Amino acid sequence: MGCTKGAIGVVGTNGAADGGSVKETVGVTVDGIVEGRVGDERWLGCFAPKIKPMHLKMSHGFTIRAKGMTVSNDFKAVEIPHQWYNLIADLPDKPPPVLHPKTFEPVKPDDLSPLFPDALIKQEMSSDRFIDIPDEVVDIYRLWRPTPLIRAKRLEKLLNTPARIYYKYEGVSPAGSHKPNTAVPQVWYNAQEGVKSVVTETGAGQWGSALAFACALFGLNCEVWQVRASYDQKPYRKLMMQTWGAKVHPSPSTITEAGRKILQMDPSSPGSLGIAISEAVEIAATHANTKYCLGSVLNHVLLHQTVIGEECIKQMEAIGETPDVIIGCTGGGSNFAGLTFPFIREKLKGKINPLIRAVEPTACPSLTKGVYAYDYGDTAGMTPLMKMHTLGHDFIPDPIHAGGLRYHGMAPLISHVYELGFMEALAIPQIECFQGAIKFARSEGLIPAPEPTHAIAATIREALHCRETGEAKVILMAMCGHGHFDLPAYDKYLQGNMVDLAFADERIQASLDNIPQIV
Amino acid sequence: MGCTKGAIGVVGTNGAADGGSVKETVGVTVDGIVEGRVGDERWLGCFAPKIKPMHLKMSHGFTIRAKGMTVSNDFKAVEIPHQWYNLIADLPDKPPPVLHPKTFEPVKPDDLSPLFPDALIKQEMSSDRFIDIPDEVVDIYRLWRPTPLIRAKRLEKLLNTPARIYYKYEGVSPAGSHKPNTAVPQVWYNAQEGVKSVVTETGAGQWGSALAFACALFGLNCEVWQVRASYDQKPYRKLMMQTWGAKVHPSPSTITEAGRKILQMDPSSPGSLGIAISEAVEIAATHANTKYCLGSVLNHVLLHQTVIGEECIKQMEAIGETPDVIIGCTGGGSNFAGLTFPFIREKLKGKINPLIRAVEPTACPSLTKGVYAYDYGDTAGMTPLMKMHTLGHDFIPDPIHAGGLRYHGMAPLISHVYELGFMEALAIPQIECFQGAIKFARSEGLIPAPEPTHAIAATIREALHCRETGEAKVILMAMCGHGHFDLPAYDKYLQGNMVDLAFADERIQASLDNIPQIV
Repeated sequence: MGCTKGAIGVVGTNGAADGGSVKETVGVTVDGIVEGRVGDERWLGCFAPKIKPMHLKMSHGFTIRAKGMTVSNDFKAVEIPHQWYNLIADLPDKPPPVLHPKTFEPVKPDDLSPLFPDALIKQEMSSDRFIDIPDEVVDIYRLWRPTPLIRAKRLEKLLNTPARIYYKYEGVSPAGSHKPNTAVPQVWYNAQEGVKSVVTETGAGQWGSALAFACALFGLNCEVWQVRASYDQKPYRKLMMQTWGAKVHPSPSTITEAGRKILQMDPSSPGSLGIAISEAVEIAATHANTKYCLGSVLNHVLLHQTVIGEECIKQMEAIGETPDVIIGCTGGGSNFAGLTFPFIREKLKGKINPLIRAVEPTACPSLTKGVYAYDYGDTAGMTPLMKMHTLGHDFIPDPIHAGGLRYHGMAPLISHVYELGFMEALAIPQIECFQGAIKFARSEGLIPAPEPTHAIAATIREALHCRETGEAKVILMAMCGHGHFDLPAYDKYLQGNMVDLAFADERIQASLDNIPQIV
Repeated sequence: MGCTKGAIGVVGTNGAADGGSVKETVGVTVDGIVEGRVGDERWLGCFAPKIKPMHLKMSHGFTIRAKGMTVSNDFKAVEIPHQWYNLIADLPDKPPPVLHPKTFEPVKPDDLSPLFPDALIKQEMSSDRFIDIPDEVVDIYRLWRPTPLIRAKRLEKLLNTPARIYYKYEGVSPAGSHKPNTAVPQVWYNAQEGVKSVVTETGAGQWGSALAFACALFGLNCEVWQVRASYDQKPYRKLMMQTWGAKVHPSPSTITEAGRKILQMDPSSPGSLGIAISEAVEIAATHANTKYCLGSVLNHVLLHQTVIGEECIKQMEAIGETPDVIIGCTGGGSNFAGLTFPFIREKLKGKINPLIRAVEPTACPSLTKGVYAYDYGDTAGMTPLMKMHTLGHDFIPDPIHAGGLRYHGMAPLISHVYELGFMEALAIPQIECFQGAIKFARSEGLIPAPEPTHAIAATIREALHCRETGEAKVILMAMCGHGHFDLPAYDKYLQGNMVDLAFADERIQASLDNIPQIV
């Protein structure tokens, strides 16, 4: 890794990060641990990537142990953040209110209490800038946090790009993605308020696994409606949830009224996140001592995920890098928000000026082809109305492999940030994503889940653009999970059997017509 | 976590670790990183597990970020070892030589060169105490190292034991186990010497995946013979290897003479590691520019794995703990040796005195029911003769789920250490192992591979014994991999369909009779 100066305070183009001033050099101790990150009023600058060889007399005959130590990739030596960040506090315009589905009035905390514990409702409506992470939650975060920030040196070499590519890897969590970052606090707050059972939906299975994991730790019952397409494609995800003690149903199911309705219309329905949400919400609303948990979309979920970006800011500071482009995939948007929101805060302060880029599948392009309107979060229309980019609450995306991105809407807070112009979006078809994933797996060594392959494909596009222009941009990518349970999708790609499902604009017209008219 | 004094210098019973003298308190910086690990002539002692809340003014509005920080579980802040450790240098008696399969004379480096590159042959025969890890290898280790050392607080609570249980978790590697620790250097040394292709066997698929991963990074061709039982039980492992670009064959296969012979005798042979080794060795010996890689057993493999134990020693020092019992599972023995050999060095010095305990499956009990004799490493008798604990080179274990432990022999170096009395061994049947695994998964949150469930079951036995005696022993356990690809085995267990395959002593008599008679 070159010793690059951090470009702090430079507001301007997203070109090379070589400009800018370095305020101070980071101290480095002999054992390779970076000091001086606490109490500094600066975006930290350059430091020597390699410590000179030291020949020290050490304990237990560990002579010369310190020889050749590098700190170049040792991003792990930052502390876990102890506060989540709420972007709403820093936005120039506040997001539109969430509306009651019957009265069309802004929802009150009481309206949400059949579904969520009070602490989470408070977070959902909070405009506090920082919210303390409970110690018990941090203690469990330590199982996998801090997650690594990795320089993709071998991918850079493969692409022959002058860009410097970094990825923040959340796949080291026990459930294999960023989802436990919010599953753990959600279950913890429920447990604190005496809730005995939680129910949820899951698309790719990542969220259901994360919730099953968290419930196992806190002794809550867990019941999951897994989108049929994913239930069939990913049997191991179901087994993982069951190993942690959860009950799993394919969705649509015959257990709920919402599920039965869908099955009447289409007995072979592949399901969708919207349908599975309806089923879980129905159960929570009709059962005592049972609450509902959502894996994305809502403010409190995005809030919990900001632990990713807060940690990443410190890691990038520690190596003296400043991102020029930040790329993440979006389904409901929690992983994307988790990484980017803390950076958007820095951007709003004028300290850095990265492009923030969301990537969605062409088969489910809510940001790039949806409308910005009030719509339901679920298919049956049981949730409050949220102003968001939506393809219509009864739109059922094709069963692409990135099951976690098959959601008709977008987190209202991301939609708002998009409308404010603080980020951009593009859609990429799945074959290009898997092409990128194979490049990534064979150069970087990690097999990505189908969802982050969208971020990888967009990163490769940007890196190849840099090769043309000669710009040494710093690209930061959200690598939100591993693909251990998605290997049949890789097999399909490697056998040449994967297809790009064409997105028919006329198909969404029908579902767009069903969006409620809120004046 | 209690603030326990390290019991350094206390040679005696394996009772409570509360005795002993503490020479110095570790310094702790404000950001929770432990200092003073370099250049110290001590086993580090007690330090405060929690830093008092600090209210610091930080950059970017991160006020009060430092509040409530704990270092109690922050084991990651040690550097990656830059040398492997060779236990042979410190043994009072040297291990018996490896013999040529035809001449019965000790093998010379030239005898091994059809199979291995010179650098690895040199390591195989080395008696140097420490061997430098190449910088390029350390650079790749950084993808997952240092691996976490985790206190199993929730399991302790579940078992209501006074014991303190720690596990060193190697499942964070891209291939999901400890195996990449040796796959990466093996492929790197081969690449340095211009080798274009490597071949290997794999049992559970962990080793094959690790080698495929390493080959992808260095651009070598990789061909893997996967034991039939595992090939059928774990289709995802095959897909993982293919995703990294490897070719995978079920073993026994019709490609090799060794495979064809076995299939003639038993067309539905479940295969064994011994057979798969024969197949891979045959291909390496008969193809130009193709070398063979082994995932366990050999000295250089065990050597590479000592990165686990070296790292763990530093991590335990940093928290002021001294292990009373160290437990690991053994198949070929590389994970067990990797964790324990550096601790055995400390034990030989009289600095600590832990019990070192190997756990094997009752279906393949080489240490507890095998003989200590010269035998072949493979079924066809193509490898050199090694003095080891063996069930006979043509013993084919039942297809238990812990495929990685289905090896007829034991690493010669572990066998020697066992004979010297520096460690003990026991065998546990698989149902008890999966019972333990479910307890572990639902309390600690990680789903173990079937192999380390043996270590977990033995750890639970020890912890329950501590509950009876009231001893607050420190148990250190090798948790060598995750079970993401073994979920059908969990399903079988949860459905009540798992059986304990009885081990018939008379069954091994036949294979023991085939062990060559070396006088």
